[in-house]
Amino acid sequence: MKDLSRRDMLAGGAIALLGLAGVRAARAQAPPATAGPADPKLIEDLVAANRILVDQGVVDGYGHVSVRHDKAADRYLMSRSIAPELVTAADIMEYDLDSVPVDARGRAVYLERFIHGEIYRVRPDVRAIVHNHSPSVIPFGVTTAPLRPLYHMSAFLWPGVPVFEIRTAGGPATDMLIRDAPLGRALAGSLGAGPVVLMRGHGAVVVGGSLPEAVFRSVYTEVNARLQAQAMALGGPVTFLDPEEAKRAQASIAGTMGRPWELWRKKALAR
Amino acid sequence: MKDLSRRDMLAGGAIALLGLAGVRAARAQAPPATAGPADPKLIEDLVAANRILVDQGVVDGYGHVSVRHDKAADRYLMSRSIAPELVTAADIMEYDLDSVPVDARGRAVYLERFIHGEIYRVRPDVRAIVHNHSPSVIPFGVTTAPLRPLYHMSAFLWPGVPVFEIRTAGGPATDMLIRDAPLGRALAGSLGAGPVVLMRGHGAVVVGGSLPEAVFRSVYTEVNARLQAQAMALGGPVTFLDPEEAKRAQASIAGTMGRPWELWRKKALAR
Amino acid sequence: MKDLSRRDMLAGGAIALLGLAGVRAARAQAPPATAGPADPKLIEDLVAANRILVDQGVVDGYGHVSVRHDKAADRYLMSRSIAPELVTAADIMEYDLDSVPVDARGRAVYLERFIHGEIYRVRPDVRAIVHNHSPSVIPFGVTTAPLRPLYHMSAFLWPGVPVFEIRTAGGPATDMLIRDAPLGRALAGSLGAGPVVLMRGHGAVVVGGSLPEAVFRSVYTEVNARLQAQAMALGGPVTFLDPEEAKRAQASIAGTMGRPWELWRKKALAR
Amino acid sequence: MKDLSRRDMLAGGAIALLGLAGVRAARAQAPPATAGPADPKLIEDLVAANRILVDQGVVDGYGHVSVRHDKAADRYLMSRSIAPELVTAADIMEYDLDSVPVDARGRAVYLERFIHGEIYRVRPDVRAIVHNHSPSVIPFGVTTAPLRPLYHMSAFLWPGVPVFEIRTAGGPATDMLIRDAPLGRALAGSLGAGPVVLMRGHGAVVVGGSLPEAVFRSVYTEVNARLQAQAMALGGPVTFLDPEEAKRAQASIAGTMGRPWELWRKKALAR
Repeated sequence: MKDLSRRDMLAGGAIALLGLAGVRAARAQAPPATAGPADPKLIEDLVAANRILVDQGVVDGYGHVSVRHDKAADRYLMSRSIAPELVTAADIMEYDLDSVPVDARGRAVYLERFIHGEIYRVRPDVRAIVHNHSPSVIPFGVTTAPLRPLYHMSAFLWPGVPVFEIRTAGGPATDMLIRDAPLGRALAGSLGAGPVVLMRGHGAVVVGGSLPEAVFRSVYTEVNARLQAQAMALGGPVTFLDPEEAKRAQASIAGTMGRPWELWRKKALAR
Repeated sequence: MKDLSRRDMLAGGAIALLGLAGVRAARAQAPPATAGPADPKLIEDLVAANRILVDQGVVDGYGHVSVRHDKAADRYLMSRSIAPELVTAADIMEYDLDSVPVDARGRAVYLERFIHGEIYRVRPDVRAIVHNHSPSVIPFGVTTAPLRPLYHMSAFLWPGVPVFEIRTAGGPATDMLIRDAPLGRALAGSLGAGPVVLMRGHGAVVVGGSLPEAVFRSVYTEVNARLQAQAMALGGPVTFLDPEEAKRAQASIAGTMGRPWELWRKKALAR
Repeated sequence: MKDLSRRDMLAGGAIALLGLAGVRAARAQAPPATAGPADPKLIEDLVAANRILVDQGVVDGYGHVSVRHDKAADRYLMSRSIAPELVTAADIMEYDLDSVPVDARGRAVYLERFIHGEIYRVRPDVRAIVHNHSPSVIPFGVTTAPLRPLYHMSAFLWPGVPVFEIRTAGGPATDMLIRDAPLGRALAGSLGAGPVVLMRGHGAVVVGGSLPEAVFRSVYTEVNARLQAQAMALGGPVTFLDPEEAKRAQASIAGTMGRPWELWRKKALAR
Repeated sequence: MKDLSRRDMLAGGAIALLGLAGVRAARAQAPPATAGPADPKLIEDLVAANRILVDQGVVDGYGHVSVRHDKAADRYLMSRSIAPELVTAADIMEYDLDSVPVDARGRAVYLERFIHGEIYRVRPDVRAIVHNHSPSVIPFGVTTAPLRPLYHMSAFLWPGVPVFEIRTAGGPATDMLIRDAPLGRALAGSLGAGPVVLMRGHGAVVVGGSLPEAVFRSVYTEVNARLQAQAMALGGPVTFLDPEEAKRAQASIAGTMGRPWELWRKKALAR
């Protein structure tokens, strides 16, 4: 019961101990307690993140982005189930790490919210998560060509980008969706300690230590995929960043993420 | 006279029994009777559908979308012959299944309206039809690579996407257009029970159980074609959804179509 | 002096007989007489055509479109030398078939205006001409793959699309520009009786029997080039329209050009 | 000490003699003296250039453009470190050729400003420099296919486009950034007397005799890269401009750069 004990440690409380079936029961009974109101600036950033991902072509009418609650490591914030472009502060809901909403009030929730809860549970370094159907990335999830960092802006890809095969965890004929906690845990396992995991025939999950970082990585994973496909089409070998230079480039670029973030945020919130 | 009897059964009435030549005569004599005013919400959805297809790059100045009349299975609604982007509620006309307009008032009609009438006739499950020149789809109609579902959003393609060869039904040198009922029937035959049929050297027809579904399928057929071409260009085998997982994914995704539809509709009608 | 006699026949008058050197002299002496004011509607269409070609991605800051004067077959109308997007009615100038402006008033003229004059001279059926650097078309001018009609919208390409090699007429090291009448005549010779000629390492010229037709053909030559490249990338043989079906498709589509034209014109003039 | 003497000759003054470590010291002590206010028109052009590069897809949230001071060959002007789209006249700063800001007032400076200073130092003909991550260009920096001029608009590429390998100058594991003067000098060495140098796994640097020329070249280097990739994908040999026709085309096109520049500038400053 490794997962449960780890979950217990992080999330604490009775609900986590109930397991998945218990969660469903608990939901009918009593929602988890709130960790209190999140920083309004964080909520605004989360709204901006939704719109930025649309503006940058990373999500369309689908996809979702979450952020860990600034006051409780065992809670995360994410919109109710609507298209990212339409998200406002009023749509943001609080979830525990079993992905049970604190205060649903009849609002629809994303079916695949377990992606978020299960990754937050096992990756304390992660404070923001994006799930997308990033168009240029999809082909790399259904072929054998590994996604690798082509230039310094995507240097963060140096640990490698695994492809999650849902058949391994979910059997031969799932509906391709991360619709429960076990699938979420399996996906988190594929992600490992990395920044990005592709989902075969579905999309990708991108994590970061902050909302700007998760958004930045989502944007430049999409760009890298597009440029890598173009480079491969030119023929001949492609020179990727080697791990050592990628690590250093990642560290340097990390210090500049505020530059595009301020631009993107300003434009996203001006609408 | 299999077709006539089927038509008779569905459309009923004297006009259907006249056959195609009779239709032309009937047109000169008297138009079919109206089934009464359609639900204004359906008209509004149809207007939105026209604009959404433009916004999503599925149609340009050409292409058309229709919906079955909500009060009569033997009538459908479609714009007069104008560019989809310009369609307003005042442009919507009613047609019978011979594709004769109920109240033309001198308005131009789409030459290829037979696509719609003949599919509605033989596919009672279909309530909306899109004909387009969807750009990424066209290349799959003129090559031997079959269009197949690459990811869950296009899982509905699992039955396969046939290519309609107009020479088979229309002889060696047509003008490529579905300009009469026999060609419409032949096209409906190629479509069979499926969701999409490609038309060699022309475009595609996409059907659905509702306007949102036909629009959704049009959008994600275009996206799938683009992504499939990119995946094929990466080299090596491409893993498509297998039929069992595709069926399940289709069922799950069907429940979420309202999410993009509300977004698209809101933006389309705001202009 | 075949060219001169043909020119003489069409354009008449003393200036044509002077030849190119004479034109330069005549310019210093006296400009050609005006054929009188053109139809304001034609001027407006020409302004719209400039902007439409920008909107459709056929031209960028370069490229030009002309129309034959409605009152004189030996005169044509074209903007002074500015970016197509900026053209207004006040910028339209009148030229004779030697491409000498009637009333320059110090305004800059397009260096490559000879493209227009020399084609109007030898193609009485042509009433509008577009010169562009249409992006998807350029690659077909520098490789051996012939541009061929992939679908009914570009059926007008059935006569074939020749590639003009400026070295044949201009020697081994021109500046790639149609900067004088002899080069214009050579280009017109490559065009022959066709609708489109590519210019190696430069762009294309598209002609039509009207402004809407020349614009329509420019747009769908660009689209066809993009789709053909995609189809070729899918591998295997590409089925193009055969000449007989292309001729019939062209005739049918010709009757529908007003549909996109009205859309494009409305949007172009609304700005 | 070839580099130092060259720097000395061009930049003069005590600071240049201090070398890089000295610069850091000098910065703490006293900034270089100003060359006086630059022409406001030049500042406005520089602001426009930033926005044009965004509009044309050459830069995203990263990239920078500079211009040599109109009153002092040993000074250049460039924005403080912000996204190009946000640059206004108030953000423009003056730097000496050691890339030390004259009047920082606590404003952040671009880490890679040495690209600019070191090129201005050794290329007196250069009056404007763009550093970008131009998307279609990146693949040519990581593969073996040389970027070559495909059409007259990019004829200026005829001298060839070298690829700068930072490992040669910076050792096996840099952070990929031109973060000091020696790396800037090495990059300037790769550029040589040419118009463009690619940076492996990073981007490109484009120079010009004026801001319009550097912007024009940036735009058409991007376009050429895209078209060249497309042409290569069509298969068979690609006919590039030969050097003699390219030189002549470049000279002719140089005279027309004002056409797109006025268009781009007008749109950029209208926002």
